[in-house]
Amino acid sequence: MTHVTENACCPDLRINGIQSEKTFVRGTLFPVEVGMRTLKLSRTYTCGEMEFSSLPLYDTSGPWSDPSFVIDPEKGLPPLRDTWGFWNENSVEAKSESTSARTPRKAIDGGGITQMYFARKGIITPEMEYVAIRENQNLEEWISRFSRGGKKHTPITPEFVRAEIAAGRAIIPANINHPELEPMIIGRNFRVKINSNIGNSALGSSIDEEVEKAVWSCRWGADTVMDLSTGTNIHKTRQWILRNSPVPIGTVPIYQALEKVGGKAEALTWEIYRDTLIEQAEQGVDYFTIHAGILREHLPFAEKRLTGIVSRGGSIMAKWCKANKQENFLYTRFEDICRILQTYDIAVSLGDALRPGSILDANDEAQFGELKVLGELTKVAWKFDVQVMIEGPGHVPLHMIEENMQKQLEYCHEAPFYTLGPLVTDIAAGYDHINSAIGGTLIASYGCAMLCYVTPKEHLGLPDRNDVREGVIAHKVAAHAADLAKGSPVAWLRDELMSRARYAFAWEDQFNISLDPEKTRESHRSSMAASGRTDVNPDFCTMCGPDFCSMKKSKEATEQE
Amino acid sequence: MTHVTENACCPDLRINGIQSEKTFVRGTLFPVEVGMRTLKLSRTYTCGEMEFSSLPLYDTSGPWSDPSFVIDPEKGLPPLRDTWGFWNENSVEAKSESTSARTPRKAIDGGGITQMYFARKGIITPEMEYVAIRENQNLEEWISRFSRGGKKHTPITPEFVRAEIAAGRAIIPANINHPELEPMIIGRNFRVKINSNIGNSALGSSIDEEVEKAVWSCRWGADTVMDLSTGTNIHKTRQWILRNSPVPIGTVPIYQALEKVGGKAEALTWEIYRDTLIEQAEQGVDYFTIHAGILREHLPFAEKRLTGIVSRGGSIMAKWCKANKQENFLYTRFEDICRILQTYDIAVSLGDALRPGSILDANDEAQFGELKVLGELTKVAWKFDVQVMIEGPGHVPLHMIEENMQKQLEYCHEAPFYTLGPLVTDIAAGYDHINSAIGGTLIASYGCAMLCYVTPKEHLGLPDRNDVREGVIAHKVAAHAADLAKGSPVAWLRDELMSRARYAFAWEDQFNISLDPEKTRESHRSSMAASGRTDVNPDFCTMCGPDFCSMKKSKEATEQE
Repeated sequence: MTHVTENACCPDLRINGIQSEKTFVRGTLFPVEVGMRTLKLSRTYTCGEMEFSSLPLYDTSGPWSDPSFVIDPEKGLPPLRDTWGFWNENSVEAKSESTSARTPRKAIDGGGITQMYFARKGIITPEMEYVAIRENQNLEEWISRFSRGGKKHTPITPEFVRAEIAAGRAIIPANINHPELEPMIIGRNFRVKINSNIGNSALGSSIDEEVEKAVWSCRWGADTVMDLSTGTNIHKTRQWILRNSPVPIGTVPIYQALEKVGGKAEALTWEIYRDTLIEQAEQGVDYFTIHAGILREHLPFAEKRLTGIVSRGGSIMAKWCKANKQENFLYTRFEDICRILQTYDIAVSLGDALRPGSILDANDEAQFGELKVLGELTKVAWKFDVQVMIEGPGHVPLHMIEENMQKQLEYCHEAPFYTLGPLVTDIAAGYDHINSAIGGTLIASYGCAMLCYVTPKEHLGLPDRNDVREGVIAHKVAAHAADLAKGSPVAWLRDELMSRARYAFAWEDQFNISLDPEKTRESHRSSMAASGRTDVNPDFCTMCGPDFCSMKKSKEATEQE
Repeated sequence: MTHVTENACCPDLRINGIQSEKTFVRGTLFPVEVGMRTLKLSRTYTCGEMEFSSLPLYDTSGPWSDPSFVIDPEKGLPPLRDTWGFWNENSVEAKSESTSARTPRKAIDGGGITQMYFARKGIITPEMEYVAIRENQNLEEWISRFSRGGKKHTPITPEFVRAEIAAGRAIIPANINHPELEPMIIGRNFRVKINSNIGNSALGSSIDEEVEKAVWSCRWGADTVMDLSTGTNIHKTRQWILRNSPVPIGTVPIYQALEKVGGKAEALTWEIYRDTLIEQAEQGVDYFTIHAGILREHLPFAEKRLTGIVSRGGSIMAKWCKANKQENFLYTRFEDICRILQTYDIAVSLGDALRPGSILDANDEAQFGELKVLGELTKVAWKFDVQVMIEGPGHVPLHMIEENMQKQLEYCHEAPFYTLGPLVTDIAAGYDHINSAIGGTLIASYGCAMLCYVTPKEHLGLPDRNDVREGVIAHKVAAHAADLAKGSPVAWLRDELMSRARYAFAWEDQFNISLDPEKTRESHRSSMAASGRTDVNPDFCTMCGPDFCSMKKSKEATEQE
């Protein structure tokens, strides 16, 4: 591996020391090449009569982990999707007057270009083929032959992807102005995804740091990144992030709109908001969180709460409604919003302005009242072929989580659910990533499609790089555990190989298969060093030492027969 | 607060900077004084018409957090239970020939002194009154008046404790040779408890470190501590730990027995094991893990597994059975073992030698076959009035956890369940404390009474002090979340106060009410410092900054009406 450049903004974040290579699987319908990270194993393991000396992994890091790629954040990533030849000048036009460096495109007819549009027409897009290949991880044979716990799966086909999108059960957030994107799919019949939030606030953080955190998030496994910047330089930060991001980028446009009116919520207007949507749409934002479901009728319920409104967007809109004595303009203008979204194929993430901020507020009238409105809005968006996902809580005690999933499916017509946690207690500050991973695993096992990560800094401050890593990995544990609970064959294979490596004392394989190879390798090394040993591959477990290793004894017992 | 001594072995681990004081609640039946840590709040909060300007917390740190206590690990803690006047020379004798410093005691008649014995006779002991007071946390009025989610609780009475112990549904592990103990109860109708494992192995760790880790564990909230030492100085380490431990200490006596036969499992004999039990009984160990349920008939099932036998004690006994072609002597001698246990009131923790070490092995014939035998042995122990808990897995995918709890209740006659995790995936090395907290929360919400912690070093090496802290707090989150799910009024009160403090921007109260006040305070301080602010109590949330604080806006919106 040659590391070509070091850059002050984005230090080389390529994955070092892991025995893996970047591999690509080609499509058959389109000239797509889906990148994966394929682990080389130190030996051949037999699982269910199949032999594995390597393991392809779902890879979110894009070109950043490709040693052949010359890193240059100023230039950005190559426009991958433009090489697929799907767009033509009859459907998409490049607009010359622009605020961004790249010439922005839009649908000529103002629509007819979204993934949902094509899906409903029965047309498979390159993005659909891409995500189908990606979800299978080049393990079609294994998926076909393997079943666990009575659950039988089949490889994902482009046609299955199309049907799920047509039904509104899944989305591919992919703005036509984000050609650097490696498409991914969010839906409960696919791998559970995680989102990482980044963004500066008035209290700190610089552009460079945010770009670095975005790349850093993908490198650890974030499937999407939300740029929640609220401070200065919002536009420029987002531009940098988009041009360097292989994953979908989401934003909450009301934050920037609020900056434009000097932070006075009551001064917001539809026109300012609309222009902000278009500005971000042209830059290539893949999904917008829009708090269109909070209505004036909900506010009295929110006021009875212990912690009121804890969503930033929600509190802005509540303030606007009260000050102007009018209904939420995001609701009244929702069709206009959809007309913009369909022009760029931006997915809408319907924000849960009234998510509970304390377990005492969970599952109350405010929360479920808004959820019903989100269900109505889902139908409106679908009229425009706009892809929809629904945001969810928040703080919810464990025994009340299932009801959230049930009601979401019922009210929102099976549109994908995307939750923040839920956090299962209010008192875990400093450890809220764990708190969130607990609730997240449970709701994802019930069908939640994407988990928004929470870092150890939640409720306390802005995350630094290490917090981002901790937050991402905690939610990778949650998402993967939910995939296992749902019987995903590719998830089960990874665990089986890990355990076979563990039983074989194949330490290098254990490190590489784990969710954080660098941390496991370093932990093991430092433990061995502390005990004065330097064996790299001891044939015993390092917790118990050579004489008390249960697996060693267990094997000896079997062998002595 | 004056810190009286610093000691090379046990540095002062008292809780610094937290606005709390050690308070004591007196019993009415016995002269017990139950220590709690009472938080002083910066203001008065109203919850359900009751006012709180302080909050008593369940406290596991014993005299270690009492500023009036002179710390001297060489001397150990005062013999608290000896001041309660329950024992008399008709029931307990002090034995003069001894291997330990303190003169050991035993039942004169070889029995008739266990908590279960008294409970069945209808007699309430000081230990029963102690734990009843402790569970209520001096919040009887709140418990009586408060209900959430339709679940009504009443304060715990000494009589309720007695009845639960008589029924075998709960245990108070309290060896008569551990008078330093502050009694605690393990059972599903009480607060969920957590255990912390410490112990040196041949690979590292010294006595001083282990004593320090024991005290450190209690200081962060461990309810019991298991000393799993396997290296040299087992006896001396245990002696130091016991004399300084306010929480019950558990051990796995087969480890020391194995040392006595030079590490050769096949050379173990009943006599060596028996003598080890007595040696540890006299020192004051409160509960023994005994792997009496693994039988020869189970071994073929274990051999079919992906990861065989991963319990250290289990692998030792499997090896012994095979080498000697005899049934497990812990099973055949189980009545003799119970005769020893009842003489000191040692609880038995029936070990799950065949717990799954990989999710593929979960809920298999080996595991559930052994669990049935543990149910039989429970009945045997109860014949001798020996208190019993049952150890559980291990690696179990999320959707298979509930079956573990159901089968345990069914097979083991409602004896308390004590699980290691479960870990919900095999690939989370480096983050297994999170992995374990996820499965642990779920099983505890179903009725598991105690969670054994797992640290970030699981599968990789021995935990250091920081790993112990991370492991303890992760499982405090899990246990507390399960208490909330079970509707515990004292658990709900803490969350409500936290959220009221959060909504009031009462930062000091938030730090103090959280599970790790030091970490939250430091995180907040460093975030503020990074942004150039030095306000100690800003009136906005430090994640979003002053202009985007949703709670601030939410309040303003309410107030502007």
